Amino acid sequence: MTDEYSLLEIVKLCNTVPDINALISAEKAYRFLLNDDTLVGVLSNTDIAPLEAECAKHMEPLFVFDHSLRTVVFGAFYDTQEKRSAALAEILSKLRAQNKWATLAKWCGETFPVFGDKSQPNEVAVWVERAASSNFGIRAYGVHINGITWSKSGELLMWVAKRSMSKSTWPGYLDQMAAGGIGNGLGILESAIKECEEEAKVPRDIAMKAKLVGTTGYFMRSELGLHPETPYVFDLELPLDFVPVPNDGEVEEFYLWEINKVISSIKKKLFKPNCALCIVDFLIRHGIVTAENEPNYIEIINNIHRPLPFPGPRRV
Amino acid sequence: MTDEYSLLEIVKLCNTVPDINALISAEKAYRFLLNDDTLVGVLSNTDIAPLEAECAKHMEPLFVFDHSLRTVVFGAFYDTQEKRSAALAEILSKLRAQNKWATLAKWCGETFPVFGDKSQPNEVAVWVERAASSNFGIRAYGVHINGITWSKSGELLMWVAKRSMSKSTWPGYLDQMAAGGIGNGLGILESAIKECEEEAKVPRDIAMKAKLVGTTGYFMRSELGLHPETPYVFDLELPLDFVPVPNDGEVEEFYLWEINKVISSIKKKLFKPNCALCIVDFLIRHGIVTAENEPNYIEIINNIHRPLPFPGPRRV
Repeated sequence: MTDEYSLLEIVKLCNTVPDINALISAEKAYRFLLNDDTLVGVLSNTDIAPLEAECAKHMEPLFVFDHSLRTVVFGAFYDTQEKRSAALAEILSKLRAQNKWATLAKWCGETFPVFGDKSQPNEVAVWVERAASSNFGIRAYGVHINGITWSKSGELLMWVAKRSMSKSTWPGYLDQMAAGGIGNGLGILESAIKECEEEAKVPRDIAMKAKLVGTTGYFMRSELGLHPETPYVFDLELPLDFVPVPNDGEVEEFYLWEINKVISSIKKKLFKPNCALCIVDFLIRHGIVTAENEPNYIEIINNIHRPLPFPGPRRV
Repeated sequence: MTDEYSLLEIVKLCNTVPDINALISAEKAYRFLLNDDTLVGVLSNTDIAPLEAECAKHMEPLFVFDHSLRTVVFGAFYDTQEKRSAALAEILSKLRAQNKWATLAKWCGETFPVFGDKSQPNEVAVWVERAASSNFGIRAYGVHINGITWSKSGELLMWVAKRSMSKSTWPGYLDQMAAGGIGNGLGILESAIKECEEEAKVPRDIAMKAKLVGTTGYFMRSELGLHPETPYVFDLELPLDFVPVPNDGEVEEFYLWEINKVISSIKKKLFKPNCALCIVDFLIRHGIVTAENEPNYIEIINNIHRPLPFPGPRRV
């Protein structure tokens, strides 16, 4: 089997929402706004009716819906992180019980922050159940860990995970050694250490050597909804004799591959797209993919560092 | 003297054109378009009259000016790279002789490519004299080389150049070990090797180990005009005993500094801004500036990887 896709085609798989405003007008989607009109997400038109019906049952509706402007804004009463988060959790659990939003079948009990409200601690406006994040189209954060080592002859090797066939998303696809969302306000390095432990049994003393080397950014759409995402990317150099072990059932098997085998597998679309994108970032940072050997070098970098239209965290 | 500026403020010095369309309407600037309407640059309103007067002297005017749409487009006769480049060089040399564009006093005899014309080799639509690139607001490319080494005790050290007081731009400011524009169709690594040799007397066999590790991108404005720029960034690990030597009069002196001294000098605005931005990129890639120690981490990355509104090269 020969290489079938270019690296540009691969990173573009994660940038399937080229322009948020075009998407909003084409699909009559609704803007999700904070009380001060900061745009923090986008709701699909079909998700609006059940959400509005549920809101209408409360004395103080959590959201105000404007159907001519197509906006969903927090009601004035909801002026703190706590009030918004509690009311939203209640509404989402009702929608879940009524089977109104299909995504809620995968309720996690893990919450994602929505940043942008300067009057709130850490600027978190509201915490949103992870399973509903793609309904609100909010910006999500994650950690992706490149587990690498060097062979005795000095060749760069990368640990690759095969996702379990029982995973609900991308079953059987290849993945980085460890990756996951950042939920419940956990720290960034803490999240990386946790994913290393949970997915690959990397001991804490090794995992904490993971080096944060940047972020990537992309805006993807899936059957679940919208995914504007900002993964924090780590490189973790492992001892040659260290072997990751599947731990939580999310990984079927780990492989230690020469980097060229990783690249050819990426080009065959065997990797989950956002993991492929983070590995292409690795290949660029380490001078393996260069402007000399890759015709679309600059456009690939643009697709790896897509600016997102929603505020990010400013940690204080 | 204490640190006065945040790293976010520093990288924003290179992003002084937040929105090209806002700038065009606010300043009645002119869009610079290829024959197929691809936007490749922006001309200041005050540069238009002398350029139009010079074009009007020719049987086949190089550019067609539309003053209601405010566009400058190549005339239909100019359908090849060669025709466009020759006619433009002639017009610019006339403007220079008449002292019409102040920038042309610094005529380089070096040309920058404008990409985007799919019918031309390497998609280069026209070659533009470097001194005029900021008048046309075309995207420019450069190389920035981080010269680093490790002390005997394992500390990361970086070579820093002090720009000569006789430089026309940013005299006396700090710079990377070597940096410069990519002109005349020179290759990217070749340009890096050339700048290392010219500015710091780095021998070719050492310079060619420079590792391309990505690009940065920003859109700056200066008194000269507009600068949408894409520097290719290299890391070059030098032997501890190697000492760069000023060679072509552009550098006054080289310093070998601990990375913390580099950072504090960046925060004091002692570096030329685009060099500072490329070093901040280095600090992020090497895990020195992280989301834990830098509150504006994500916004800094956004400012380092600004997408530009003009086509870049697609090397074939």
